[in-house]
Amino acid sequence: MTASDVNKVSNTLPLGRNCLLVVAHPRLDRSAVNAPLVETAQASGLIEIHDLYETYPDYQIDIASEQARLLSHEVIGLQFPLFWYSIPALLKEWFDLVWLHGFAYGGTSPKLSGKRLFCAVSTGGDSASYAPGGHNGYSVEEFLRPLERTAALCRMEWLPPHILHDAPQLRGPRLAEAREGYRTYLNSALERHHA
Amino acid sequence: MTASDVNKVSNTLPLGRNCLLVVAHPRLDRSAVNAPLVETAQASGLIEIHDLYETYPDYQIDIASEQARLLSHEVIGLQFPLFWYSIPALLKEWFDLVWLHGFAYGGTSPKLSGKRLFCAVSTGGDSASYAPGGHNGYSVEEFLRPLERTAALCRMEWLPPHILHDAPQLRGPRLAEAREGYRTYLNSALERHHA
Repeated sequence: MTASDVNKVSNTLPLGRNCLLVVAHPRLDRSAVNAPLVETAQASGLIEIHDLYETYPDYQIDIASEQARLLSHEVIGLQFPLFWYSIPALLKEWFDLVWLHGFAYGGTSPKLSGKRLFCAVSTGGDSASYAPGGHNGYSVEEFLRPLERTAALCRMEWLPPHILHDAPQLRGPRLAEAREGYRTYLNSALERHHA
Repeated sequence: MTASDVNKVSNTLPLGRNCLLVVAHPRLDRSAVNAPLVETAQASGLIEIHDLYETYPDYQIDIASEQARLLSHEVIGLQFPLFWYSIPALLKEWFDLVWLHGFAYGGTSPKLSGKRLFCAVSTGGDSASYAPGGHNGYSVEEFLRPLERTAALCRMEWLPPHILHDAPQLRGPRLAEAREGYRTYLNSALERHHA
C-alpha cells in the first residue's frame, strides 16, 4: 500500500480514522486508572474497545478473528499497565500468534503497512524514576523499543506513546485531568492528517 | 542478603554456582539452534534445564513450584529466541505471575537478591541489523532493557547476554562453533567469582 492509497482510504472517513483499542489488563475490574481510561476512549464513539483478558481468559487466541479485526481499522492502540517494563503476557501472546510472517511483515505488501500504532501506558512509578540515574534507569520510550521496532518492521506509523505515571495515586481531580489528557491524545491519534 | 552472605553461600559449592536454565521456545523440537544449545547446557552436568513450553502447554503456571525452583539456584539463565524484539509470551507470563511483589522485589529482603541473571538469545537477523541505522535500529542489549532493569529491581547481578545472530543459517561447523561459544559463556556465568 502506497502513501497515496492510505490517503484515499482515510478520505472516505468523515470523522477521522477508525481505531481499535486493544486493552490488556489482567484485572481491569480492579484497576484504578485503566478502567476509567477505557471509559474515556469508549465515550468518544469512534473507538472499538477490545479487552484481551476478557476475550481470552484461557489464552486461546482466535488468530483469524484477530487478523480480520486489525485489517478493518486504520489506527491500532494498545492500552496496558507496564509489567516488568514491558507489555502484559497476553498482549505478547497476541503479537506472537497474530502478527505472523506474510500477514504483519515480510513479503512485498505487509497488510498492516500505513496503519498507525500507539501505546497508552500506565506505570506505578513517578516520571523522575524513568530516567538515567532514576530508580528505573531508562525512559518508558526506551522500554518500548520492541514495540517501536515492531511498528517499523510492519511499515506502520509509530506515534509517541501516551504515558501516565503514578497510576495508583491518581484520584479525584488528578484522575479527571488524566482522563481529559487521554481524550486529547486520542483525538490527535485519530486525526486524519497527523501532525 | 549482603555481598559477604553471597560469598558464604557460593563457597559451599565445589564446582561453581548452581544454575537454572529456563528455556522458552514454543517449538523447541523444530528449532535448529536452541535445541542443540540446550544439549550443550545439559552436557555441562551443572545446569538444571526447565523447558517452560513443555511444562506448561496450557499456560497454567504453578507459581509456588516456580518460586521454589528459583530459590534453589544461584544463577538464573533465560534461553529464548527473540520474538518481536522481546521474550516469548509464556516467559513473560512466568515473570508476570511468579516474580511477585514481596518475593522478587519490594520489602527489605527480596528473595532473589544476589543471584545472577543472564539471557541467551537467538535472533533471525545478522548482527549489523541490530544497530543504529540497521534494519532493526537498536542493539539486542537495548531491546533487553526490560530484563536488565528487572534484574536491577530485584537486586540481582545482570550478566551481559549471550547473543547468537543468524540462527536459521547456523549449520555444520558454524553450529559446532556456536555450541562451543555457548559452553564457554556458561562456564563463565557459573564461575564462583565472576570477572
